[in-house]
Amino acid sequence: MTVVSFAEAAKVKVDRVEPLNWWVGMKNPALQLMIHGENIADLNPTINYAGVSLDRVIKVENPNYLFVDLTIGKEAQAGTFNIEFKKGGKVQLKYPYELKKREANSANRQGFDASDVIYLITPDRFANGDPSNDTVEGYADGLNREDKMGRHGGDIQGMIDHLDYVEDMGFTAIWPQPLVENDQEHMSYHGYSITDFYHIDPRFGSNELYREFSDKAAEKGIKIVMDMVFNHCGSGHWWMGDFPTNDWINYQAEGFKPTNHKRTSIQDPHGAQVDLQGMTDGWFVETMPDLNQRNPLLAEYLIQNSIWWVEYANLGGIRMDTYPYPDADFMADWTCRVMAEYPNFNIVGEEWSISPAIVAFWQRDKVNINGYSSCLPSLMDFPIQDAVVKSLNKEESFHWSDYWNDMYEMLAHDFLYAHPEDLTIFPDNHDMSRFYSQVNENFDHFKLGITYFLTTRGIPQIYYGTELLMKGVEDHGIIRSDFPGGWEGDAINAFEGKGLSADQAEATAFMKTLLNWRKNSEAVAKGKIKHFAPEDGVYVYFRYTEEAQVMVVLNKNAEAKTLSSARFAEILKADATGKELFSGKNMNFSGDFEVPAKGYLVVDIQ
Amino acid sequence: MTVVSFAEAAKVKVDRVEPLNWWVGMKNPALQLMIHGENIADLNPTINYAGVSLDRVIKVENPNYLFVDLTIGKEAQAGTFNIEFKKGGKVQLKYPYELKKREANSANRQGFDASDVIYLITPDRFANGDPSNDTVEGYADGLNREDKMGRHGGDIQGMIDHLDYVEDMGFTAIWPQPLVENDQEHMSYHGYSITDFYHIDPRFGSNELYREFSDKAAEKGIKIVMDMVFNHCGSGHWWMGDFPTNDWINYQAEGFKPTNHKRTSIQDPHGAQVDLQGMTDGWFVETMPDLNQRNPLLAEYLIQNSIWWVEYANLGGIRMDTYPYPDADFMADWTCRVMAEYPNFNIVGEEWSISPAIVAFWQRDKVNINGYSSCLPSLMDFPIQDAVVKSLNKEESFHWSDYWNDMYEMLAHDFLYAHPEDLTIFPDNHDMSRFYSQVNENFDHFKLGITYFLTTRGIPQIYYGTELLMKGVEDHGIIRSDFPGGWEGDAINAFEGKGLSADQAEATAFMKTLLNWRKNSEAVAKGKIKHFAPEDGVYVYFRYTEEAQVMVVLNKNAEAKTLSSARFAEILKADATGKELFSGKNMNFSGDFEVPAKGYLVVDIQ
Repeated sequence: MTVVSFAEAAKVKVDRVEPLNWWVGMKNPALQLMIHGENIADLNPTINYAGVSLDRVIKVENPNYLFVDLTIGKEAQAGTFNIEFKKGGKVQLKYPYELKKREANSANRQGFDASDVIYLITPDRFANGDPSNDTVEGYADGLNREDKMGRHGGDIQGMIDHLDYVEDMGFTAIWPQPLVENDQEHMSYHGYSITDFYHIDPRFGSNELYREFSDKAAEKGIKIVMDMVFNHCGSGHWWMGDFPTNDWINYQAEGFKPTNHKRTSIQDPHGAQVDLQGMTDGWFVETMPDLNQRNPLLAEYLIQNSIWWVEYANLGGIRMDTYPYPDADFMADWTCRVMAEYPNFNIVGEEWSISPAIVAFWQRDKVNINGYSSCLPSLMDFPIQDAVVKSLNKEESFHWSDYWNDMYEMLAHDFLYAHPEDLTIFPDNHDMSRFYSQVNENFDHFKLGITYFLTTRGIPQIYYGTELLMKGVEDHGIIRSDFPGGWEGDAINAFEGKGLSADQAEATAFMKTLLNWRKNSEAVAKGKIKHFAPEDGVYVYFRYTEEAQVMVVLNKNAEAKTLSSARFAEILKADATGKELFSGKNMNFSGDFEVPAKGYLVVDIQ
Repeated sequence: MTVVSFAEAAKVKVDRVEPLNWWVGMKNPALQLMIHGENIADLNPTINYAGVSLDRVIKVENPNYLFVDLTIGKEAQAGTFNIEFKKGGKVQLKYPYELKKREANSANRQGFDASDVIYLITPDRFANGDPSNDTVEGYADGLNREDKMGRHGGDIQGMIDHLDYVEDMGFTAIWPQPLVENDQEHMSYHGYSITDFYHIDPRFGSNELYREFSDKAAEKGIKIVMDMVFNHCGSGHWWMGDFPTNDWINYQAEGFKPTNHKRTSIQDPHGAQVDLQGMTDGWFVETMPDLNQRNPLLAEYLIQNSIWWVEYANLGGIRMDTYPYPDADFMADWTCRVMAEYPNFNIVGEEWSISPAIVAFWQRDKVNINGYSSCLPSLMDFPIQDAVVKSLNKEESFHWSDYWNDMYEMLAHDFLYAHPEDLTIFPDNHDMSRFYSQVNENFDHFKLGITYFLTTRGIPQIYYGTELLMKGVEDHGIIRSDFPGGWEGDAINAFEGKGLSADQAEATAFMKTLLNWRKNSEAVAKGKIKHFAPEDGVYVYFRYTEEAQVMVVLNKNAEAKTLSSARFAEILKADATGKELFSGKNMNFSGDFEVPAKGYLVVDIQ
């Protein structure tokens, strides 16, 4: 954002060139710069740098913007060149632009996968590592811990400070809610009202600190998953009121028109066009203007933004907010562009539906009736989340409708997915009642549920504080409560295990055991799943590869149950033995075996 | 069943040859006879009839059976021939077998379709037309109207007697629960424990009376849909204890083993083989032994049985009970055999799941991941039934979660079906709480629901007595209560409209209006559907062809609502006018229009 030289005509300047920089050696040689500055369209940009060609200059309705198409040739070397802005053949101003060298193996980076467990953090509520940025001049929304919807001071430094804790618990990836600027009047803490796609909010830290966070996490084998939002921006975004084009946001002239949230309209063979438009073009809420990704300049801007962050912050994945709300064709383009650049990467989309047919639509390789296809590897598995809670809360169990039926039947619906093994599974998230509250604070059921999420197919995600049995129903402010120990003077310090209740200590230890065991379980990381129909309130499934096998037994009954090994003969060898994770006991599967009341077995089969 | 001549060896006889007869001119020239008689396998059957060849005689484990493969050549004429049973070259006995002439257009018969509305009847509970057959000698389960699970005396004559009523109401098809013999100790009234696949139960009438019923119905343009059960027979079936083979029923040696009802196991990519077997091979209940359709002789027996009834009774369709429980490959063969013989016929299968992905699996032309395909035209639409009840009972309505959302979103799931327009839709059936009870006896909601079922896509089915607001929750005996007026001395006679409450009279008139209007509605019979996202508690959809258009508006609010015609511009012409069915009023769609409180509009658009 440095203006190097200034034209005599003081009214012409450059205040933004985005992406902030780029890299040499990307698979896609194209780069489109967005240049913003008062009356910048009066000038003609030129570039003179070996291997870089300026192919096209696009002027739009607003003279404060220029879009410039470059090709970064294979022969281009890392370095900085000046973009020279001319008028009448005379250079009026110069803007330095850097092409960086990519890090080794950047293109082949491994995204999060089923060997990982993701820790979802609401950064404002996790730990306040740097009180000096709690309130920042020029930003209206400052520290107010009394307000459950206000900023509580948590930040990137707080996450850096507690990477040890995250590692020790056994998580191998962190998904923080968005950290980029949210310069909104209120409720800026959650991060989903982005006002600058290229800069970390100063109340959370800086771009440099975010990169440091990622580097320090990487040292511990922890991937950073960036939370992105392409459906909308915040009403305080810097381009509001100075849009490049007349179609930058939907209903740009009219203003706020709410989305109808009718996500089924995307696949509906009987749907009305007006409703499909109402879904994708309507605004999420009044403070979140709906971006029009059908505009190719905005589309390119967003796609490059995501690639920029992957390279800049060495990301291990992306979580995409409100996945079905933007233009569906754009989302397909975006996923395919990112995955073409990083074939082993991962992106998880949020389609909040408990219908697996609706969720499955978006995943790569899914054959859809309407021909839609994308390159999205993962989706949030809301259907399984819902089924687990239903099963755990089910009060009656019959022959044909066992406690576990909802889970069993929902997992059977995996035939709808092209890649069920790549789904991201979770007991709760930042938008839902806390899992412990969802199971009515039944600790036994909590443990049964967590055991399931950490051993079934897919990539588990756990919301911060779940290990502490944090509670909260519906109210976002309460659900996203401060993590005890994250603030100076906190009476309870969960990072150090101080002041926890017996149940909290047990929950933490329980999860730590599972998470750390899981790190080394090939069967869980790479195995298929075979489940047996729930019988008599007991649900049994296996994770297995050629090399490894894990048996999981979940018993919801108030009494212990005896099972016959013979029932599992199609997968369990007759002479199988195994070691149970929690008890450490050896088990023998030549005959009957027992699962404790309201208990579970996680057995490495030998 | 006539033994014409008798061998000197008195221990050899023929007591059954099935199918009871056959027809010349069928597309499939093959016919397999099952011949039953003590030690019949001692004899060799021969046939000498022009155009008919005896290709193979199959002897099985049980000497009381012979299976004989015939080819009925194109040149074969209708007539009767003797099957001669020989031993040592000498004819021991003869059995006359008839080949009939097919009725004109039999092969091209039109099955029930969306121009029809099916009236589902529990025959024992509809009308007692012939008290002389209430109790029949030799049948343990006689008349007992005090027992809700006992026989109440309703019969085929009762249905014949009231065809006028059915016609007058506006139904164009009747699906009676099974009428074939159920010689069980108790609960024989419902018909699903079949003890003879080829004979009408004498307590209901006779084969000849059933044919008369069908003929008289046909005169009124009413099709008969036969309820068939291939998954199981009744424990009182004549072949129990004298099975042709050792694998005629599943768990034949072991006896009763219940099905696990895990219907999702059929598509489950993670399912256990043992559970799939438990699903298909387990018995429905102890009195319903599970037939093993993998036995090719039994498979052929069942397939021919269904074709025999189509020809014999001039059927307009088949409803298949417990569709996913028999062997899936057999069911595919069966549907394809029937549909090959009658390309315009219809069969509806019962897959009681509220997951459209599970239901859709079975329909013809559905492309399934596991490669399964069949020729089944229709399925019972349990998902829509469930959604309608949820919508009608929903107590709160929000912007993103309207009263009508469940229905709107479930209809959107039609992308899962190959032919959603061929599904059979219903407010309730004989196994469910009565629809009026399901909507908590809210008459307004009842009417909104019925309006939907009679105007949305698919083929409606209405259970007898729905027009009388009959009640009943879960208890089959109560749900299947006697139709008032069906028994001599009934205080209320609904057939004549005598003694009805005001609501009952209104419900009957309301349905009669819709049903009779529907008969002449091309838009409903043949049209596509386009629905608009529910807004403000109002759900609007159109049925339309090139020629005709119907608009339906459902308002669940306690107040009238004003709608703007402009919202529907993509289908509703700007200068459209229309006539509303119930009020008879002309409407104008140039601007706003109103739908009454808790009301509905059914408008023929001009």
